Amino acid sequence: MNAKNVIADVLKEKGRIKQVYWVACGGSLIDLYPAHFMLNAESETVESGWYTSKEFLVLPPKKLSKDSLVVACSHSGNTKETVEAAVLAKERGAAVITLTDKAGSACDRPDFISWVYPWGEGVSVSETPGCISLALASELLAAQEGFAKEDKVADAISKMDEIIKGAVAKVNSGMTQEFAEKYGEEPFFYILGSGAAFSQTYGFSICSLMEMQWKNCAYLHSGEYFHGPFECTENGVFYFLQKSAGKCRVMDQRAEDFLKTHTDKLMVLDALELGMDKINPEVVDYFNPILFYAMNCEFREALAKKHNHPVDTRRYMGIVAY
Amino acid sequence: MNAKNVIADVLKEKGRIKQVYWVACGGSLIDLYPAHFMLNAESETVESGWYTSKEFLVLPPKKLSKDSLVVACSHSGNTKETVEAAVLAKERGAAVITLTDKAGSACDRPDFISWVYPWGEGVSVSETPGCISLALASELLAAQEGFAKEDKVADAISKMDEIIKGAVAKVNSGMTQEFAEKYGEEPFFYILGSGAAFSQTYGFSICSLMEMQWKNCAYLHSGEYFHGPFECTENGVFYFLQKSAGKCRVMDQRAEDFLKTHTDKLMVLDALELGMDKINPEVVDYFNPILFYAMNCEFREALAKKHNHPVDTRRYMGIVAY
Repeated sequence: MNAKNVIADVLKEKGRIKQVYWVACGGSLIDLYPAHFMLNAESETVESGWYTSKEFLVLPPKKLSKDSLVVACSHSGNTKETVEAAVLAKERGAAVITLTDKAGSACDRPDFISWVYPWGEGVSVSETPGCISLALASELLAAQEGFAKEDKVADAISKMDEIIKGAVAKVNSGMTQEFAEKYGEEPFFYILGSGAAFSQTYGFSICSLMEMQWKNCAYLHSGEYFHGPFECTENGVFYFLQKSAGKCRVMDQRAEDFLKTHTDKLMVLDALELGMDKINPEVVDYFNPILFYAMNCEFREALAKKHNHPVDTRRYMGIVAY
Repeated sequence: MNAKNVIADVLKEKGRIKQVYWVACGGSLIDLYPAHFMLNAESETVESGWYTSKEFLVLPPKKLSKDSLVVACSHSGNTKETVEAAVLAKERGAAVITLTDKAGSACDRPDFISWVYPWGEGVSVSETPGCISLALASELLAAQEGFAKEDKVADAISKMDEIIKGAVAKVNSGMTQEFAEKYGEEPFFYILGSGAAFSQTYGFSICSLMEMQWKNCAYLHSGEYFHGPFECTENGVFYFLQKSAGKCRVMDQRAEDFLKTHTDKLMVLDALELGMDKINPEVVDYFNPILFYAMNCEFREALAKKHNHPVDTRRYMGIVAY
């Protein structure tokens, strides 16, 4: 499928979209955040909302209507609350795009615009939800109000695989090993980031470390860090900073400057040292999370090896009733 | 000041507000979330955005204009990034309301609509930012598009002092003491909540525990808990659940049901047992955080006494350069 055509179909039916709601849970919700963030920053007319599925279901926005586009993502295609949210949106008259890895799942049905994406080794990030949702947002802006950065977004999407390839090699020549060897036994991990990348700050915490490695940790916004959380900082407390390229970098830089002199346990993952200087500065803020997701996978894998705890080990998810 | 009059003045000048942006840092940002949450759920026409001040400054929404209302809050009135955000909003032509406790501060100047609020022992919550912002949102909806729940919101605001009084007495007859005595030495704290109250889940973590008690902790959304974080749950790991009254309660209930059987260290603060049944069910979702903020103050005070660490102790904030 192709974002331009999907948006053209939506607009052919709807005329005009006033609201976009990005709805999912956990890792899928995280993947939709950069597009939400970009719409908020760049749109002259479209409102954007970002919801965990159950909250969208129990208290849906009053505006949810035929003027709305709902993009719902479920990797398995069967996340109960996400499917129900998509059904609710359809009932309210919204256009509904579902993103799923699983053909034939509950998300993949004829009354939704179902986009089944590939996953796994060798798949281009341009074909996965983070970039699909950015492309959908970009094409909606382009079609509806004109978007001077449309080409820059497309160019960035086309460059991410190559950047990630280089970045994977770079972090695995010392940094992921240092993370696992030196900090793998920390009692908890503070993960910091900002801007669109804050989604992957959250993602590194709740998916990579909590879900896949059973590590206790907390995610903090670099800008908010100085308004409370920094009082916990001291030698012996571990911080991992995702330092973005772009306009939000000043927040990460400020956090780094403080952390450097107030804890002896700090790792900084710098997007600019990992190839993000190749992305146009006008759109780079939206692509840091695409890089950081790929990096999170490398860091968790190093931890998995060190602790002999494969990243697909679960004790509850899909195993017990909840 | 009075929310109805303030909104009348804004609309007299602006005609119509299309976007409201709530902008602040840390504890002040937390106080603005319920109003943002209510606008998202209840408005037919107004878009709402909620931003930490620095992120608003470096990547302001393109829509920020003469059609926008910015509500900026800084308790001290001098939070640099919040003042700068308010100035930017003014330059872009927006109406700007500043909430501050400090008359004569940088937030309290003639080109803003400055609302100086009282603070401290004996002050009604109706006069403080959480309720002021809910009142502003409610009056904007009422004036601009009609809001059937306007009276219910006003009624809820008028009842919160009495509810909080009863709740304070109740939690201090055992529960805050149990928190301090039994769990005060935990290596970290998981705080859970959902809906509008998620702001106070965050607030209990970053303000009460991190800033004021130097306790490491993480804030989790009850709905998101099952999409990753629950894999960390086991006996010996402490969880504190803020259980809301209203439509979001189902998310907290689900988390509680799981936690009860998967950790031996759990405390549940139930809004319905603390008097929130007195608030109309149609608006109670927006008022849980007003209750929980007051409760957070009691729980942190118990911890402060236990550890002889007064809640105003700081080692960095306002002390070192950052």
